[in-house]
Formats: sequence, C-alpha cells, structure tokens
Amino acid sequence: MNKAAVCTIGDELLIGQVTDTNSPYIAKELNRLGIKVDTMVSIADDTGAILACLKKLTEKYRIVIVTGGLGPTRDDITKKALGILTGSGSTYIHQGQLSVIHELLASRGISLEGKNHDQASVPDTASVIVNRRGTAPCMVFDMHGASASILYSLPGVPYEVEGLMPDVSDDIVKRLRLGRICHETMLTFGIAESTLADMIEDWEQKLPEGFRLAYLPDPIKGVRLRLSVYDSENYEDCMKKIRAEFSKLVPVLGNAIYGFGDETSLQTVIGHILSSNRKTLSVAESCTGGTVSSLITSVPGASRFFYGGVVSYHNKVKADTLNVPEHIIARYGAVSRECAEAMALGVMKAIGTDYSVATTGIAGPGGGSADKPVGTVWIAVAFPDNGKTGIKSQCFRFNSDRTSNIRRFSATALNMLRLVLPAGQVQAL
Amino acid sequence: MNKAAVCTIGDELLIGQVTDTNSPYIAKELNRLGIKVDTMVSIADDTGAILACLKKLTEKYRIVIVTGGLGPTRDDITKKALGILTGSGSTYIHQGQLSVIHELLASRGISLEGKNHDQASVPDTASVIVNRRGTAPCMVFDMHGASASILYSLPGVPYEVEGLMPDVSDDIVKRLRLGRICHETMLTFGIAESTLADMIEDWEQKLPEGFRLAYLPDPIKGVRLRLSVYDSENYEDCMKKIRAEFSKLVPVLGNAIYGFGDETSLQTVIGHILSSNRKTLSVAESCTGGTVSSLITSVPGASRFFYGGVVSYHNKVKADTLNVPEHIIARYGAVSRECAEAMALGVMKAIGTDYSVATTGIAGPGGGSADKPVGTVWIAVAFPDNGKTGIKSQCFRFNSDRTSNIRRFSATALNMLRLVLPAGQVQAL
Repeated sequence: MNKAAVCTIGDELLIGQVTDTNSPYIAKELNRLGIKVDTMVSIADDTGAILACLKKLTEKYRIVIVTGGLGPTRDDITKKALGILTGSGSTYIHQGQLSVIHELLASRGISLEGKNHDQASVPDTASVIVNRRGTAPCMVFDMHGASASILYSLPGVPYEVEGLMPDVSDDIVKRLRLGRICHETMLTFGIAESTLADMIEDWEQKLPEGFRLAYLPDPIKGVRLRLSVYDSENYEDCMKKIRAEFSKLVPVLGNAIYGFGDETSLQTVIGHILSSNRKTLSVAESCTGGTVSSLITSVPGASRFFYGGVVSYHNKVKADTLNVPEHIIARYGAVSRECAEAMALGVMKAIGTDYSVATTGIAGPGGGSADKPVGTVWIAVAFPDNGKTGIKSQCFRFNSDRTSNIRRFSATALNMLRLVLPAGQVQAL
Repeated sequence: MNKAAVCTIGDELLIGQVTDTNSPYIAKELNRLGIKVDTMVSIADDTGAILACLKKLTEKYRIVIVTGGLGPTRDDITKKALGILTGSGSTYIHQGQLSVIHELLASRGISLEGKNHDQASVPDTASVIVNRRGTAPCMVFDMHGASASILYSLPGVPYEVEGLMPDVSDDIVKRLRLGRICHETMLTFGIAESTLADMIEDWEQKLPEGFRLAYLPDPIKGVRLRLSVYDSENYEDCMKKIRAEFSKLVPVLGNAIYGFGDETSLQTVIGHILSSNRKTLSVAESCTGGTVSSLITSVPGASRFFYGGVVSYHNKVKADTLNVPEHIIARYGAVSRECAEAMALGVMKAIGTDYSVATTGIAGPGGGSADKPVGTVWIAVAFPDNGKTGIKSQCFRFNSDRTSNIRRFSATALNMLRLVLPAGQVQAL
C-alpha cells in the first residue's frame, strides 16, 4: 500500500497560535485515492529542521506533502531548503504562476513588486502546479531515491491548499498505480460513545476480515462510525458488503442513526428533508446565541427552506418579539419547558413557517443555580400535526465549558428537530 | 533552552476526520512556561509506531507530551506501549483516579464495569496526575535517559486535555528549572497581510537583537503581530521593551490596531467597551445567518450588553420583523446600502438598543450576479450621535467560498462596529 507523510511548516503552529487544518484536509483527500497517511509532523520555519525532516520523510514515504514556509512575508525558507535537498543548481521563472500573480495583484489594486515577482521563481529540480488562489506556486519534486518518493510543496494558507489539492491528487494518480480504499461513514446522534460501543460490541466482533471500524465522535455531528476496507478487490462489491454490515445496526441503534457520508451532518439532513418536502423553518435562540441559525445557514441552499430566526438573548426580546407571555417567564423562568414552547410557537407564528425550534438554557460559566445548573437547556420543536401544531420539548443537562455547552445545546436542538421531520428517523440503507 | 515535542496518537487524525486541536493548546501552555515546542507529530493507534516514535522523541526532548490512545473504546494501546517502553513489570490501581471514575459514571447513571475499572490501572513505572474530567488518568514517566526526558501521557479528548494541563504545567515547573518567554500579541483588522508587511517593514528591520516577529493572520481576529523574546534576563524589563516597540506602530497602523493579548478578539473588545459604558447592542443578519450573533455571545458576560438579534434570511422577515420598507427591497434589492441601513435602524428600534449592526450580502456559491457577485456584502452600523441616531454603511467584496465569505462578512461587521464605539479606535499601549 502506498503510504504518505504530511509535513506542515510554521512557527505559528509550534507556538500554538494556529491550528493545523491542512493536515486533516490533505489526509482526507489522500484517503480518497487509497493512500494511507502514516504520520503528520509540524516543524519550525528553520532550514536545518526542514532539511532533516524532509530528508527522513522522503526516504521512507512514497508521497510527501509539505505545506507552509512560502509566501510574500516569509523568507521563502522552504523553497531554498528544497533546492538544497534536491541538489538544484539554479532557478527559473514559471510563466503560468507569474500570470496568476499579475492577475491577483491587479484585482487587489496592488502593483507587482520584487517580492511578489520572486514567488514565480522555482528551483530547476521542480515542476509546478499553478496556484490560482494565491501567489506561491505548488512545486513538485521527484526525489529519484530508493523510495521513489514524490514531494509536493504547497503554500500554508488553507484556502489555497483546498484549491490545489484536486490538481495534486490528479498528479498523484498519474504517477502511481493506486488501489482504492472503500469506506462509508454512518452518523448517529443521541447515544453516548461508550454506551454505543457496548451496544455494537457483538456486531463489531463479527465484522469480516479486513474490515476496520473507527469511532469518530464529533460535538456537532454526534458519533460517527466509519467502516474501511483497504486493498479491496472490487470497489462496488466491497461497498455493497460495507452497507450490508451497517444495515445490521438499524435494529440495534434505531432512530439514533440519521445519515451516511463524509459530508453529512444534522444540518445537511435537515436541509435536505425540508427542501425536498417544500417545508420552511424558523429558529428562536436564547443561550445558543445564533449558533443554531449559523449551523443551518452554513449549508448552501439554506434559503430554500430557512426563513430566519430570532436571537432572544434578553427576556424582553422573548416577550416583545416572540410574544412569550410575561407571566410565563415570571412564573417558570426563562429556562423552562413553558418558555421554550412559547418561544417555538412564537417564532413559528411571527415569521410564518411550518417548523420551528427553540433553545433556552444556561451556557455558563455564570448564571447557574441549584435547580438549574450551568449546562441545563430546554429545547422545544413545533411541527405540523394533522392540521394542528404539535409541540415537543425536552430538558438536557450537560457538564462542560461555555463553548462546549453552546455547541452541545445547538447539536441537540438540531437532533430534536430532525426527529420530528418526515423520514428524519432511522435512515435505512 | 528546554525543548519539547508533542505527539498525538489516533487513526482518526491520520484519516483526517478529526483536526488536532490538542497540539496547539498544549504548545500555548508550554510557551507560557518558557518551553519551546520543536515538533508536533501525529501517529497511528499502532504499538510499533508508538514505540518507535516515543523512543526517538524521549531521546531528543526534555519534555514529551503524548495525547490519545486511551479510553474505554480503545484497546489501551498507548498504555501498553508505554509499559514496554519504560520496562514496566506490573501494574497498579490508582485509587484517586478510581474514585473519579466512580463519581463520573454515577453522575451519568452508568455502573462500573471491567473496562472502566481497568482505566485506573497504570504501569508501575508511572506516576499519576488525576483526570477529573474523564476516566483515563494522565500518566507521568521519568525516562531516566541521557536526555532526562519526562513523558506525560494524556487522554485525547480536548476537554480533558484542557482540564489536565494546569496540573501538568505545575509538575513540569517543579521538575525543571525554567526561564520565561516574553511575548505580546498586537491585533489589527482592516489591512491585508502583505500590505501590512510593507507598512511595517522598516520597523521590523530595526527591531532589537533577540526580538522575533510572527505574522498571525486569522479570519476572525484579523492580522495579529506577535513579538517574542526567548531567554530574557528580566521578565518585566523585557515586557516593557516589547510594548515600547509596539507603541512605535501606533502612528503607522492607526485605527487598524484594536487590542493586545492572546485571548483578545474583536468580540471581546466590543463586549468590554459596551459593558463598561453600559451600552446595549442588537444585530440584524441576512447572509451571515447567525454567525455575528454567535461570535458576540461566545464571550462570557455577553448578556450584560447584548439584547439579541434577528436573522432575517428571507426578505419577508426583513419587511415584517425589521420593518424594512418593501419599496426599498423592490427598488434597490436586499443587498444594498439602503437595505442594510434600514435593517440596522429596524433592529435597533424593534429590540431597543443603543447600537446595532446589520449584514446583507451573498455568501455563495449561488445567488451572485454581474453587479453583485458572490462575496459582496453591505454592512451598516447604527450608533448614538449627539442625541440622534448616526448610521454608517460600507460595501465589501470578498472572493472566497461560502464558509470563508460568511466568516469574513462577520469579522468585517464586528470591525465596523468597534470603529464606532467609544475608544474603539487605536488602542494605545
């Protein structure tokens, strides 16, 4: 099996100021090609460290992908180190990248200066994949060593990495003879990871040879189960077998299962069901402060079904804009079944939608009490029910910091909503 | 100088399903102690890979922090590998961790079973730092090797890593004699990274010996400049010098500068100014779909000044809830100065606040036109102005994918808001 290493260069990574999102992105893309990433390493903007690391990686791995250390405010340390590593004697200007540099700077109203022009200059040992989203080109080096390693050097900006990876992938496919990894991801929400593990333990033990299961908990997506088969003989057969295995979990996990696929999430499933059923949605949020709305609108096409929402952070907004009766807040408090339901019905009426969801709770760190500690949330969903309006509400208690609580409240709200949608329960394969 | 390596174990990292947030978090904490992280590496849940990697790291680095590979659904591969690496002959049950396990399971209504009880069992070569947020203890190994390496093995769950790091830091401080890294971060918003670099080039060339500058662009925070001095003689003197250097940039960068500090962001600055001035804020969002509100409410204490907002995703919500006159949308369109200003004034009146900000634009990928391409946004801010209500609006054009556009629209909206706040401009040191 072809193995790869991903190396991310940048002092900003090592001081913890920037989180490395390039490595997981690149790993996902390589996986699609059937290439397994064996290691990911982050190193300093330092010629010695770069040389030592890349020398080791190219001796061991067929594909080495490096990001960072390139760009107009850097000293182009990476480029120089790669020149040394590959025994380059001179440089050349890549005309294709130079044209892109001209265009990009012109569109930003910046004139071409030395430091930007130099970005089109690459070692003579490199071929180039043009970067259309930035000024630094992607350089490709055939290491001609015992491991027949190919090294791809990309800029560090994630948006540019994402723009380059399709061409990098094509290049890898051309150079290597690749098998295909078969995998499928099943998404569940509502069962804790360790409980889920117990429930599927039998099934896991009985998986066929070569089937590898990964548990992938995610604060918004829930617990994802990913079945992978490396070195499959026949892709279609293999995918059928994977799906057959997942089908066995439907009677076990019931409506905790909500979808399949790497790009699937509660919000994409909700969006898909509402759009295809031509139904509309509104949201009333208190403690989640806009997060539920932002998750829903993060999916392209949200305007097909999402009309909008009200962030009723202050109680007077609950009363004035959502028409939550003052006596309800006075009697039961803002964090109550009664208030959550009034908010859901209020926004549904105020905005005029088929469905609505409301959240009201205490994200923390302040605001908790003995009755209603930090992490308490009431969630209500309103839905069409045989010509009337149905309402469901539930209280949840989480035990975490503000950011995590807000995320969990929001994900749980999305899950309650999908459970009342047509076909929101138990996605059969 | 004491150097460290961070090793994160987990197949889910290598398949790109999970982004490594532990490494940057740990690096920030180590930096505070004056320890420089030299490398960060992610490896597979594989005994051989773990042994090889940790052997190399402990031979080279004084401090090695490892996360992952522990927990009730794992095979505890990391624990076994560490036992082998340290020549452990037996295991013992750590009573402190066992008590925590009991408590945690009881509070979740789960009974203690074999797999959870075993988590309190550690190699006899390990000492333990109790994990109060999860079942797996942090194990500490004195490697007794030539490099006098100390290895800390933590669970992989970020929330648990954050809970353990204070105790891990204390333990490191006790064992090592530590110098202090001096650093300060200045935050700017509104000037592109490469333009900023040109503007401060002179200043950068003239920085004193030992002063290291890092450019840290962030989609929400803007461009951060971080000055660091390693191996300082006197911490207070050094910090004074760093601040003096930053002061020289005030006449150069003007009101692009908005704050200082690692935890500072546009939303914390806005929150601080509004709270201390006892002013209130509301938000009207279209294309940003709740993101501006969620950024504001991500900061504890937001309820002191933030009343709420309206996500007017559909035009009828702009008309009905925000009272944007229908003729404005008909004549100028939703993405226009007139609509943005009407939304800002509308939400300010509907909710009743001193300040408001509104966004209306096209995040993409669909919805663009020749006049108003994807990435266009109008942002308006309404504010108290000598007894009347002032209004400012501006159009911006970005050129990115949906997620990035939404983020940039939101950050730019926060920046426009802070520029109209008292003392929102030019934070002098």
